[in-house]
Order: sequence, then C-alpha cells, then structure tokens
Amino acid sequence: MNAENLKLCEKLVSSSYVQQGAQARSIQENKIRQLLQHRKLPEEGWDDITIELCLQELAVMDSNNFKGNCGIGEREARIASSLVAKRHYRLGHGIGRSGDITAIQPKAAGSSLLMKLTNSLVLDVLKIAGINSVEDCFVVPMATGMCLVLCMLTLRQTRPNALYVLWPRIDQKSCFKSIITAGFQPVVIENCLVGDELTTDLSAIEEKIEELGPDKVLCIMTTTSCFAPRIPDKLEEVAVLSKKYDIPHLVNNAYGIQSTKCTHLLQQASRVGRVDAFVQSTDKNFMVPVGGSVIASFDKNLLQKISKTYPGRASVSPTLDLFITLLTLGSTGYKKLLSKRKAMYSYLSSSLSSCAAKHGERLLSVPHNPISMAMSLTVADGGDNERLSTEVGSMLFTRFVSGTRVVESSGTETSVSGYKFQNFGAHHNDYPCTYLTAAAAIGMTESEVDTFITRLDKVLTKCKKRKTNSGHSTCYQEI
Amino acid sequence: MNAENLKLCEKLVSSSYVQQGAQARSIQENKIRQLLQHRKLPEEGWDDITIELCLQELAVMDSNNFKGNCGIGEREARIASSLVAKRHYRLGHGIGRSGDITAIQPKAAGSSLLMKLTNSLVLDVLKIAGINSVEDCFVVPMATGMCLVLCMLTLRQTRPNALYVLWPRIDQKSCFKSIITAGFQPVVIENCLVGDELTTDLSAIEEKIEELGPDKVLCIMTTTSCFAPRIPDKLEEVAVLSKKYDIPHLVNNAYGIQSTKCTHLLQQASRVGRVDAFVQSTDKNFMVPVGGSVIASFDKNLLQKISKTYPGRASVSPTLDLFITLLTLGSTGYKKLLSKRKAMYSYLSSSLSSCAAKHGERLLSVPHNPISMAMSLTVADGGDNERLSTEVGSMLFTRFVSGTRVVESSGTETSVSGYKFQNFGAHHNDYPCTYLTAAAAIGMTESEVDTFITRLDKVLTKCKKRKTNSGHSTCYQEI
Amino acid sequence: MNAENLKLCEKLVSSSYVQQGAQARSIQENKIRQLLQHRKLPEEGWDDITIELCLQELAVMDSNNFKGNCGIGEREARIASSLVAKRHYRLGHGIGRSGDITAIQPKAAGSSLLMKLTNSLVLDVLKIAGINSVEDCFVVPMATGMCLVLCMLTLRQTRPNALYVLWPRIDQKSCFKSIITAGFQPVVIENCLVGDELTTDLSAIEEKIEELGPDKVLCIMTTTSCFAPRIPDKLEEVAVLSKKYDIPHLVNNAYGIQSTKCTHLLQQASRVGRVDAFVQSTDKNFMVPVGGSVIASFDKNLLQKISKTYPGRASVSPTLDLFITLLTLGSTGYKKLLSKRKAMYSYLSSSLSSCAAKHGERLLSVPHNPISMAMSLTVADGGDNERLSTEVGSMLFTRFVSGTRVVESSGTETSVSGYKFQNFGAHHNDYPCTYLTAAAAIGMTESEVDTFITRLDKVLTKCKKRKTNSGHSTCYQEI
Amino acid sequence: MNAENLKLCEKLVSSSYVQQGAQARSIQENKIRQLLQHRKLPEEGWDDITIELCLQELAVMDSNNFKGNCGIGEREARIASSLVAKRHYRLGHGIGRSGDITAIQPKAAGSSLLMKLTNSLVLDVLKIAGINSVEDCFVVPMATGMCLVLCMLTLRQTRPNALYVLWPRIDQKSCFKSIITAGFQPVVIENCLVGDELTTDLSAIEEKIEELGPDKVLCIMTTTSCFAPRIPDKLEEVAVLSKKYDIPHLVNNAYGIQSTKCTHLLQQASRVGRVDAFVQSTDKNFMVPVGGSVIASFDKNLLQKISKTYPGRASVSPTLDLFITLLTLGSTGYKKLLSKRKAMYSYLSSSLSSCAAKHGERLLSVPHNPISMAMSLTVADGGDNERLSTEVGSMLFTRFVSGTRVVESSGTETSVSGYKFQNFGAHHNDYPCTYLTAAAAIGMTESEVDTFITRLDKVLTKCKKRKTNSGHSTCYQEI
Repeated sequence: MNAENLKLCEKLVSSSYVQQGAQARSIQENKIRQLLQHRKLPEEGWDDITIELCLQELAVMDSNNFKGNCGIGEREARIASSLVAKRHYRLGHGIGRSGDITAIQPKAAGSSLLMKLTNSLVLDVLKIAGINSVEDCFVVPMATGMCLVLCMLTLRQTRPNALYVLWPRIDQKSCFKSIITAGFQPVVIENCLVGDELTTDLSAIEEKIEELGPDKVLCIMTTTSCFAPRIPDKLEEVAVLSKKYDIPHLVNNAYGIQSTKCTHLLQQASRVGRVDAFVQSTDKNFMVPVGGSVIASFDKNLLQKISKTYPGRASVSPTLDLFITLLTLGSTGYKKLLSKRKAMYSYLSSSLSSCAAKHGERLLSVPHNPISMAMSLTVADGGDNERLSTEVGSMLFTRFVSGTRVVESSGTETSVSGYKFQNFGAHHNDYPCTYLTAAAAIGMTESEVDTFITRLDKVLTKCKKRKTNSGHSTCYQEI
Repeated sequence: MNAENLKLCEKLVSSSYVQQGAQARSIQENKIRQLLQHRKLPEEGWDDITIELCLQELAVMDSNNFKGNCGIGEREARIASSLVAKRHYRLGHGIGRSGDITAIQPKAAGSSLLMKLTNSLVLDVLKIAGINSVEDCFVVPMATGMCLVLCMLTLRQTRPNALYVLWPRIDQKSCFKSIITAGFQPVVIENCLVGDELTTDLSAIEEKIEELGPDKVLCIMTTTSCFAPRIPDKLEEVAVLSKKYDIPHLVNNAYGIQSTKCTHLLQQASRVGRVDAFVQSTDKNFMVPVGGSVIASFDKNLLQKISKTYPGRASVSPTLDLFITLLTLGSTGYKKLLSKRKAMYSYLSSSLSSCAAKHGERLLSVPHNPISMAMSLTVADGGDNERLSTEVGSMLFTRFVSGTRVVESSGTETSVSGYKFQNFGAHHNDYPCTYLTAAAAIGMTESEVDTFITRLDKVLTKCKKRKTNSGHSTCYQEI
Repeated sequence: MNAENLKLCEKLVSSSYVQQGAQARSIQENKIRQLLQHRKLPEEGWDDITIELCLQELAVMDSNNFKGNCGIGEREARIASSLVAKRHYRLGHGIGRSGDITAIQPKAAGSSLLMKLTNSLVLDVLKIAGINSVEDCFVVPMATGMCLVLCMLTLRQTRPNALYVLWPRIDQKSCFKSIITAGFQPVVIENCLVGDELTTDLSAIEEKIEELGPDKVLCIMTTTSCFAPRIPDKLEEVAVLSKKYDIPHLVNNAYGIQSTKCTHLLQQASRVGRVDAFVQSTDKNFMVPVGGSVIASFDKNLLQKISKTYPGRASVSPTLDLFITLLTLGSTGYKKLLSKRKAMYSYLSSSLSSCAAKHGERLLSVPHNPISMAMSLTVADGGDNERLSTEVGSMLFTRFVSGTRVVESSGTETSVSGYKFQNFGAHHNDYPCTYLTAAAAIGMTESEVDTFITRLDKVLTKCKKRKTNSGHSTCYQEI
Repeated sequence: MNAENLKLCEKLVSSSYVQQGAQARSIQENKIRQLLQHRKLPEEGWDDITIELCLQELAVMDSNNFKGNCGIGEREARIASSLVAKRHYRLGHGIGRSGDITAIQPKAAGSSLLMKLTNSLVLDVLKIAGINSVEDCFVVPMATGMCLVLCMLTLRQTRPNALYVLWPRIDQKSCFKSIITAGFQPVVIENCLVGDELTTDLSAIEEKIEELGPDKVLCIMTTTSCFAPRIPDKLEEVAVLSKKYDIPHLVNNAYGIQSTKCTHLLQQASRVGRVDAFVQSTDKNFMVPVGGSVIASFDKNLLQKISKTYPGRASVSPTLDLFITLLTLGSTGYKKLLSKRKAMYSYLSSSLSSCAAKHGERLLSVPHNPISMAMSLTVADGGDNERLSTEVGSMLFTRFVSGTRVVESSGTETSVSGYKFQNFGAHHNDYPCTYLTAAAAIGMTESEVDTFITRLDKVLTKCKKRKTNSGHSTCYQEI
C-alpha cells in the first residue's frame, strides 16, 4: 500500500497500529530494493509471502495483466485456464525475444525483470560455489544436452572448417548425442585406468589434435561431475592444451556446482588455460524440477553470442523456479545445503564401506570423485553374473531405492547414434569388476542413507544365499 | 477412495449418503478411464477439481513422491521450495530420457503418463483443427525457432551434403535465425506482390533448386500463419516441388492451428505432395504461457527420429500446461474458441474498415490471410514519415494497445545474422505503402476490438491534426 | 513497488516499459484507494490478482507476519501448517476482541481493516438489495440460529421480566430452537390458510400480547424467506403492533436479501413500525460456504450492544469469504445475480407448472412467496401415501436432485425441544394436500431447472405406474 | 486410480513402473484406511500431498461437487468465487444440521466425515495431552467465550431456578462476559494471595453456595490456564464441592491442553469430584487461526445435549484447519511441540530471571503456573508510575515484541458489563507490585526468547536512565 492508502487506513484503524503495519511492510520493500540494487542472493532466505508478493508485483507489469489492455497481436499471453495462470503467477510472455533469449520484452517488463534478476542471482551463486571469476551466465529452459548443442552451434559460426569434437569418454548418452545432434563427429578419447579410477588420457587428446589438425576440431568437451569410478576430467591440463592449440573448450559441469572440487577445477582451468563455456543442470544443482540449465562463461562476448544463437522466446518456468528457490534459500541456506552434502558424502562413504566389508566387498578407491562412489559387487561376477547383477538393481528398485546403478563389464557392445561402445556405462572397455554406484547429491538426508544401507544389506544377503544354493537364481521372483 | 475405505466411511456416515458420494466419485474415475482408454479430448471440458485430482494421481506415481523412497542417485527430483513443488503439482522428473524426449522414465511413471497422454490429446486437437491425416506429434519445451533447428539437425543426418535452406521471405527473425543456428545458409526467395498481397514465388524456388542442386538443399522452409499483407505460402505447390525434387519440406505453422485455412493447407499439401514436419507454438494456439511447441508429422518414423535427436530430459511445464488447458476446454470448448476467433476476424475486419474509411485510409485487400489484416497509414507517408509512423505505434502502446505494428517502407537496410534485408518487417523490398497490422487471434474478445478501434480513432485524429499543424510532430511528448 | 524500487527497475529494463508497468500497477492501487475511501462495493468486480494482492497487503500488517516479531503472549497467531496458513492468506488473529466482536485488534491491523471494510461492503449490499435505511451491520461467524440467540440475549439485558417470544409458526428447527437456547418460552402463533397460502395471524399475535402482558414478551420473531406455501410474515403489520406495544421485533431474513420482496418488506416495516434487528445467512445470499451471518439493524446503538454481547474473538473466515466474493462480483455482478434469480423464478415456475399439468398435478398458488414454490402431489395422497411421498423424495435424491422436499399432512406429531407440532414441516396442523417444494435461489442456472424437470417427470411417471399396478409400492428398491 | 485405470496405464507405460506407482499409491490409501478405521492421530504426520488428496476425496462426496447435480433448494452450497471455493477445498455445506451441530448432512457426506473424523482426532489429542478419561468432544466454530455461553444455556435447561454463576476471579473479559451474555449474575470470588501467587479461595466458594442456595447456582466456572501471578484454580477441590452440592462445574481450559499440569488437573478433578464440561481454544492449543473451540466432557450425554443446543449449521473452517494441522503433526509432532514448549518455559524463565537480576528486579515466584510468568517492575512503582508502566508496554510493542503485558495496581476501578473491578487485569484488588508478564506458549522458539530478552534489556536500561534523569519521563517520544 502506498502512503495515500495507509493514510486512509488510519481512518478505520488506529494510526499507531497502521504505522506498525506499515513499518513491517517496509521491511519487505527493503528486501525487494536490496535485490534490485545488488542483484545478489540475500544472505537470509525470504519467506513465501515475500516471494509471492514480489512475483505479483512483477506480474502486474506484464501487459497481459494490465487492466483495460487490448491485445491486437498474435501473441498476447492470454491464458485459458485459471489453474495454469495461477501456477505461472500470471506470467505468460516467457523470456527473450526472437533475436536473443536474454533480451527485454516491451510487452513484459515484469517477466524481463524476473529473467534479469534470476540470471544475476545465478551468477552470484556460481561465485559463492567457487567459480569466482565467472563473467556471465543465463538460464535456458533446456536440458544440458541441448545447451551443449547450442554452444557447439555457436562455436561453429566462427570455426567453419571444424568437423570433430574431442570427447574424453563419459558413458552418459545425452552429452554424446549432443555432438551428433550439433552435426559433428565425436572423437572418443578412452580413459586411463589408474588404481580404481578412470581418468583423462591427456596425451591421447594431444595426439588426436595433431592428427586431425586444430582447425578441424570444433572443441574439446570435458566433464566434471560423473559416476565413479570415472573421475572429473583433468580440466586444467585440458585447458592448457586448449589454449596452446587455440581450440575451444566446453565443459559439461552437469551437477558440479554442488561440489567445490568441481567448481575449483573450473576456476583453476580458466586461470591457467582456456575454458570457453560450461553448462550445468538446474535440477541437479538447485533442487528444482527438471527442465533448465545454466550456460556460463568467463567471456561475456561469447556468452552473448550464445544467447543470440537461440532463436525465439523461451519458457519462463525454469527461471521462475530458480528465482523462487534461490530467494527461499538465501546464501546461508545454499551454503548449508553444500556443506550438508559434503557431510553426507562422508557418511554415505563410511556406511557403504562397512556394509561392503560385511559382505566381502569393498568400496572402490575413487578419491577424486567428490559426489559419486562405487562398491564392488564380486557376488555378481563369474557364472550367471549378468542375471544376478540385473537382479540386484531390480531388487533395490522394487524396494524403493532409486538412483543406484549396477555396472558390469560383460563385454556387451552398445551402439549410440551409430557409434559402437564396449561395455557402455562403465566408461571403459574392460573395467576389472562389477560394481554398484551411489551418489551423495544435494538434498540427501541421513535417513535416506540409513534406509539405503539397510535395504542393500538385505538384498546382498538374499543374493549370496541364492548364489550359494543354486545356479538357478530366482531372486527376482521372490521380491 | 477404494471400496474398503468407502466401507469404513459407512461406519461414520449413513450408508446411502456414502453410496451417493461414491457414485459421484466414480463419475470422475470414469472420466479418467475414458481419457486413458481413448486418449482423445473429452467432448465436454473437465472442471478444475477433476483435473487436479488426476494430476495428483499421476504425481503419486513418481518416485520423488513415494513414501519411504531413498534417492541414491544424482537426480532424484528433490524440490527445495514448497512453492515450486506446488506449482508443478510435485512433478519433478521432467519428461524424456537421455536418449529420447518421448521415452518413458522408470523413476517417473506419472510424468511419463502425463507426457504420453498430452501428446495424444494434442494429436487429437490437430485432427479436430483440420489436419486429419497427421500421424504423430509431440510437445517440446522449446519455442518454434529452436524446434525448427531440431528438425533441421535431424534432416542433416540423412542429407550430409546439404548446405542450403530455401526460405520464402517472411520477416520474422526467429525462423530465419533458426537456419543460421542449425548451420545452414538461408537462400531467400523474395515474395511476389499480387494486388495488396505478398505471396510465394514458386518459379524462383524451382530455379534455385536447379541452380544449387537438390542434394545441396537441406529443405524448403515455408510458413503458414503470418502478418498481412504477407499471406500463407503456397503450401500445396511447394509440396509438389518438394516431392518432385525429393527435398524435405518443413513448415512453420506458428499460430496456424487456430485457422482452418492454415490447417487445410497442411492437410492438402500432404495429400498432393510432401510435408516432412510442421511446427507450431503452444502459446499462440492453445492460450498457455510461452515456452512450448508441437512438432508434428505425417510420418511416424521421421517424428521418432526428431524426438531421438533431442539429447536429454526436458521440462514438463509446457506439457502440463497443455494437459490442463486441453482438458479444461474439451473439444467443445476448443471448437467454440475456433469459431469465436473466426467471428472476431470478421468483426475486427469490418470495424477496422469503418475506422479506416473515416480517416481516409483503407483496409488492404488480403483475403488469403485468415488471421492478420492491415490498414493503410497514408497519413504517415511522405515528409517526416518515419517519425510519425513510430509515433503511431508509441501512442497506441502507451494507450494500452498491444500487438499492432506499424510498417513502413523507408528503404532502411537491416542486418540479421549478417544477412542484409531491405525494409525488414515488410516481407518485401519495397511495399507500396505504410500500414498498420492487426490480428484476430484466438481468445480475442469483442470488447478488445471495440476498445482498440476507439483508441486508434483518437490516435489517428491526433496525428492528422499534428501533421496539418506543423512539420515538427510532437505527438509523442503529449501522450 | 514503491517509487524507489521502480527507479531501480529502470536500470534493468527500459524506463518506458517500467513506466507502463507502473501505470498499470497504479490502477490497482487506485482500486484499493477507492475501496478504503468509499467503503462501498466497486461497480465492476475485481479480478483475482487484485484481490489477492490486497489481501497480502493486509496480511503484512498483522503481527504474526512481521519479520523479526517476537511473540511472548499466549495467543500469537502462530500457524503450524503451511496449508492452513495459505488458505487463510496468513491471517491468524481472527476478528474482534474479548470485549466486542467489531473491535480493532492492536496485534492485527490488517485483520481489523478487513473486518471493517467487509462490514461496510455488506452494509452497501443491503442497501443495494433494497433496505435503504439500514443503519449498520456486522458479519458474525455463526449461523443464523445462533445469531438470533445472540440478539435475544442482548434484548434480555433490557427486558429483565420477559419470558416469552411470540413466533408465527415457521417449520424450520433452528429458529425455533434459538428461542429455547436463549432461555425463553416460544409462543407459537399458528398460520392462517388463505387460498393455498399460509400467512400470519395478526389478531392471534395481538391477543397473545394482551394475554401475556407486553413486558413479559421478549420479542416477536418473524420470518421473511421461507418454503412455500408459507409466505413471508406480514412484517409491516407486525412492526406496527411491535411499536404499539413497545415490544422488540426480530426478523429472520435468512435468505431474503436475494429477493426485493423480502427487502422491501423490511424497509417498509422499519418505516411504518418497529424492526429492531434482522438476521441473514451469508451462504444463502452471497454464495459463500456455510458459516456466517449478517446481523443488521436500523438502530446503530442496538447493533453495538449486540456486538458487545458476543464474548471473545471470532473466526475471520466468513468475513474473508464475503470480502473476496463481494469484490469479485462488484455491484454490477451482484445485481446481475439478483435479476438472474428473478428470471429463474419465472422459468422454474412455468416449467414446473407444465410438468405438473402433464401429471394431473398443479402448482399451488403462492404468489407472495418470491423464492419458493410448491407443486401438489396428489399421486401420493390416499392409501399408502406416506411411503410413496418418501419414495418420491428418495428417487429424486438418488437421481442427483438436491433441495426439494416432499411434505405431506399425515397427522404425525413431532416433538422439537419438548414442544409438540402437528405435521411439522407443513407450517400448519392440517394442510389440505401433499406437495413438493422447489426454490429458485441465487446462483441457480437454466440447465439445473431443465435437468430437474426431466428427472421429476421420470420419477412421477414411474410412481404413477407403480401406484396403478399394485398397492405394494416398490419404487425405492428399483432405483 | 482404481485397478481398471491402472491396467489402462500399463498400455502407455511399462507395467512394472505402473505397479511401483500403484504400490506407492496404496501406501496413501492405507493411511486413509488407518484413519477411518482407528480415528486416531497417526503416529507420524502426513505430508501435504496426502492431506490434500484426502480432502479432495471428501469434497467429491458433497452434493455441490457432484457432476450433473441440480440444486433445487435454498441452500445448495454454490460458491461464487473460485478463490473462495479453492480455499475451502470446495467444501461448502458447513457442518451440522438445524437440530444438532454434530449431525450428519445428507447433502454432504464428505463434510460430515470430515467433522466426525476431526472430532475423533481431537478426542485422541485430548487423551494424548493427559485427559485420559475424557468421553467425548466436538469442535465449534466459536471462540471459548461463546462456547461457555452455549454450555451455560444448556445447563439452564435442567436448572430452571438458577440465577448465579460462581466465578473465582480471573481478569479476562470474555469469560466474565459469557456469564452476563448467558443471562446470569456472576458472583465474583476474590483470589487469595499466597506468597506471590493468586489462588482460589475455596471457603469463600462454599460460603457463597450456602448463602445463595445450591439450586440457585447454575454452575461454578473455574479456569486453568491464566496469566501469572494468577495460578490455575484448585480444580480438584472445587470439583469435590461441586459434587457435594450437586452444582455443575464448568472449566475454562482456554490454552491448557498444551500443559500437562492443566490437563492433569482436569483428569484428577474428574476422578475425585465433578467436572461437567471444559472448553478450550483451538488457536491457542493447536496453532491454527483464531475461530474455533473444543467443548469436551467426561459425560457423553451432557455433551450431546450441548451439541443439540446449538441451533443451525456452522462453518467447517476451524474443523478443516484442525484436521489438516493434526494430520500434519501426527502424534509424534504434537508431542514434540508439547515437550518443546516445556523446554521453552524453562528457558524463558531462566533468561528472564537473569535479565531481571541485572536490572534489580526479580521473577515472581509462581511455580504453579506452567505457562505464564511475571517479572517485577519496581522501576515503574512510585511517583509517576502509571505513565512509565504504560511506556514500557509501548516501547516493547513498537520494538515488535507482542504479547507481554505490564500490570500495575494503581487502584483504578474498571467497569465490565456494569460490574466494578478494582485493578482489573491484576486478578486482585491490590497486588503488591507492578509486573510484566511473559508466556511460553506452544510454538515459541529460542530465538524469540533471545530477541525478547535483548529488547527488554534495552527498554529497561532506557527507562531507568529516564527515571534517574527526571520526573518528566519522555521515553515514549524517543522510541
């Protein structure tokens, strides 16, 4: 309420009470002022009432919510269903314009403000997470794979002769497919097995560059966050090669914001070598529904080019989710989530280690992967192993454990977009043992770990018994 | 409530009342059954309570909503903010899998069902709208421009030598940019001026095909819905050429579902020639917030290829909006919207015509454009015209009229992604007069038309006075 | 957003767009200003966004929503469930204080404003509905029966010798019980049968006054809205008696606001005689959920006394519902509802009349009841009639017709709070025929009338057949 | 979804995923089954999704939500505003019938179930809280004062000669006013000062009974929860007197459920003597918005009589709030709140004690009051004390401390409903010192205590300085 309206309130309710209310209200307006002024995460999170008030203030500034507006165009953000209108806080115009996904829309000042503010908040979060010298970023309502496509399509514009993308093997389909979709030939760099860890083969990369010729290479695409026993790529060293040969370096930092190891890799790589752009998922790092990514860069110009490569408007939905979530958390809340996750990593690691020991298994030694870990599953090795390893996965799934994966090196060949991979899923043609992965991701709770270990223990007990008793495993039917 | 629970209710409340309630409830379950069984738009729309119940039923089937589920992966659809969870009806997993945007997710049976059902409903709507022989379609959470990119990237996989996209000029940035982003060279086919209408130059297309060689052409990209005095491309004839030369034909049907003229063009074109895929915006055709598109095809296989080209998961948000909206409307409701729109076209057309006459202007004769129309603005021609035409636009904007555009042929050259256009916006290098566009789009109301005409009348009156009084127009300042 | 924040927005988004948004926003603030200033129903209804914004503004002014407030009392409006907080727009303090239900709460300026404004809006609605000289009113979160109790308890304070309440018979339990609950003895005045109508026996009232002595009578309690063939009491004549003998006159105007006949009766009665207070239900007149009433008076002092008789705070919920509903409707919307209802009365009346004729029945002639009507059910008379009349009711109920009542004069005696009534429900000891009632209440639609008539027609057909075929009616089982 | 619909889902999504979802869903149905079967608080609280699903299941069973229902009555629960419908989960019929507030409504099986279930849950909570032998209870949408009125009006029906209510003084207006409103004469029993505590004068009660005659006394109304230095009445002893003289005993247990001391008093009193009914506020005990009360009794018959005394329907709103809140908390959650409160009492007590000591004040010794405490304010005694004590209150209020009260014995006489009280607020005609009260109520947090102490410390420092400097205190202006 403005001053005039407050004055009118005083005719109905004692002036001192109204003043008290007005003072309380100004605290909210100050929060909004702080946000507009500094465009940084507030230290302390906002409550829902303040967030919704702010969103309504923004919605009011969009033309579809103007009283008495008449829409004479083909795109007027009319919303047929009130359920839909409500769930979008009546923001209907999306973000961006035909020329640029970060452009301001004349018809939608509110949505435009939301987009600008959210991008600023995310930039702040990236810095908080450890990527201090990041220059700019923006939220895109597409998954990481499609964002990698967008980045490659942008890079193509300045590298007309490029045909190849160098790709240290990471057995996750969407990043591999992104290369195909963007119209390039992936050059797979197999990983080195060092101890239990799978790591980047730097010399193979350099050899390939020399072999193909630097200008034929569109970019090197590396990965940070990944499933153990794969570890984050040697970003710094690749960045140095990238700089040396003047080849763009694109990083798939999928869920790496939640780990300082990953963010520091990026920060360091950009310092010692070249990192052009890095992409991360919003759902995996910020606990929002699937559907958005953040494209970030140490180079404002490149980022602007990428944003201009996206043709047309885009959904405001992932931006809105991030805006709400980041303001709800505040920097204190987000930092708390990060340190909680770190603690959960240790807890999961030691719990899983004990469980493994009990069953004659062991936690693989993968110290360089800060999120994912793997436990050997020798019980599934030998004999009818394929069946048993499938069963362990199924048994966990039907016991409401989601997200673990059992990986075995059965020698199967898989074809992805026409490319053949040996033991796809293992990041390696012939990893020495079968194993089960588990990840300590942001938002995980102690009770989830405890429940998981209990259920895993039961499953392993049952499987060992089965294996002992007969060759005809029937675990699955008994679940 | 299941039968057991209803039985228990009868211990608290008289059996006959409970039975009455159960009977009422079964009506809702029947609706859901009908939907699951036929996967078509219900004739009569659903009310909000039934829709939300259905969504909650679906949400319950996603692993992030399982009681006692423990998430041990890196992507568990945890949602930090309850505001965010609520606005997504607790659906967190998005749609699709890394391999395919239309794939089923093991962790998210509910979201997967939602996706499948929505795609079916949209297919039904396309048929209702007149594209009877459409084979398949899917919703993508990207704007049309990016969908066109995706289609072209898919086509590239089978046309490795292609370098060009033939593009009958349509002055709308995102479709043009989509060609650049996809990595091809746009070949602009200038329009023919016939009467007031701007229409496809078929012989120029055929000449270009011969000149460049058919296998060098990735596709011909045509447009249906567009701003007058441009009219929909000659789809049938282009489709015939496309078939003759075995060149894919991609149609930008942006907001064409709302017009039977556009849908019949597509239907006919597919019958007499070749249409590979066509793309339409969800917001412009179905009154949902900006952010989604529908990619559709007469060829199931091609459509599947396109869906497999999208790397990674995607936001469920546009799918959810469509699901809610289509069920809210029902086929009756959607048909009503379509016929209402048609009536509004006539109403706007006659109202604008009268207003034009009053001010010595005229409605351009563009009978083949079923949505958009244009009125001459000779008042802005000659002398200080650029300024005045800008002012008319501004004056309408500040008077809360959104969506009209004033287009003049001032001879300006615009560069879009490095390509030069004469009089960009006019679809023609030298359209004979300045004009103002207006569109009768879905959802428009009579009172919007009336208000628009009133305001336009005032603006024109003011401008004419201004022009008469002096060369130094100062309209803008006076608003 | 305040001016300072808007200024900051202009650093992110073009100034002219922000200004446009600010201008749109000020329209909303003006609406709130108008409301605060005039405290009357806006002519045109508000949309949901404006209403929710206004409610949030009010909620912010309550201490439980103050940032940094510390609550050291026993009643701090803490709300445990966020679902509950949300559904009350975070208003937790209720209305009133221990001394007075219309008092301002120091801890809750927002709730207090809401209460004051709503009471003003309701006062305005009462005038719009035709009670022009009403002086004051307030909303109470109790049903009408309990409000009548409150009024009688207030009257008692100035009439220490009173023992009786004169009550022209109206067979509706809660108003009768209200007399008992308040601790008085009801003196039943039987109705006169005039034609088909049941109407007030004025001379019986006067006789009773003389017999008991005026100071022994607490009040005369009359009724406006009622089931046909009972008609509204002769309010004017009773008001004259009331004035003559200096006895308070309390009117149960349960759902009478929706009918100008009822409101004019009140208006006239207050002009020619005495009406102390009148009570009406909020759900029946304003289409809100059950739970609130409006107590109104032509005498401010009396009304204040009543409000001070209510001990303690009260729920804000019915007030909130009214606030939202009245603002949503606006005076235009409410007037439209009133005239629609009138039209529905005619439509129901003629439809029911035709249906009656078809089955050899007739609409009773009850011209003075403006809402309810009755149709004879001679089919149920004679023989096994009790059973058949019950069946007609049941058959309609299970066919999803709610709200009709079948009334027969079987001679049964009913005891209500120890008082015996002959044929309770018929308002008369021996009404000549069995009948079915139907009401045209606010919000009724044409399609409801049509469906009702169709179903009634089927039921009557089935019953007549049954009656013809055998004396052992088995309608009920066959439903 | 029923089995048939799940089967249909399997045509769209792999059977095993659907089964997993169905299994998860059945967990929810089991919860509802448990609730319907045992009608007790679940141990573990429900999440929002389950609660809302359950509410929607109930809403579907009310006639206003039946598809195709036609409403032909005067009360059909039509809801004009969708905001209002939504916030009530589309429950429109309220609770109760004209004859009985706990009666089942034929038109509203869902609302009736909700009411029955909630009353059962509350009964369970009362037992959990320590009143093990409570027989029955129901929720009323009225504040405690009005519920006390209802109880007294019920008692009157069996005690026609009663004129008086014996009332051990408790300086809280609404309970005193309830006696007046109910039409009785309050007989004030002054408290005894024992140490710092104010306690029940039993012999004065017995004397009064003898003096007035037992049958002239409607009831004795005692109080449990109250502001220090008043302590809960000697319930057991009063109950014994009550039994001895056969006089009903009504207990105002306003916010006593949160304290085992209060609940044990009730439990014991009912064991050794007579307690007819006891009344408690829902907001103060269960953290819901103001507006409801629970009337409970050790005697089912009496309770039924009370419920039948309420004439007419009532709002479902407070019932709904309780239903949601109790299910959200579960018994574990509620017990946690209770023990947290107890801990807060100790914490507040020791913090306040230290603060008092620092300023030369002391915590009054009131060991028998389990919720409220009082600190001496000698700084405000003597001289211009009235002013200073007012200022301390104001200063705390404007510093966002709500709920404390400064009480001084200035000798002022207050009139409540015509009765004169010396030093109203102090529960005593001449309490020896000025003091400040503070309460540790349910939901209070440590940080609230800390903030309060900090602010109180500042205020006391400022006041002492002021007092030292001059007789003309100007604290207030400086705030």
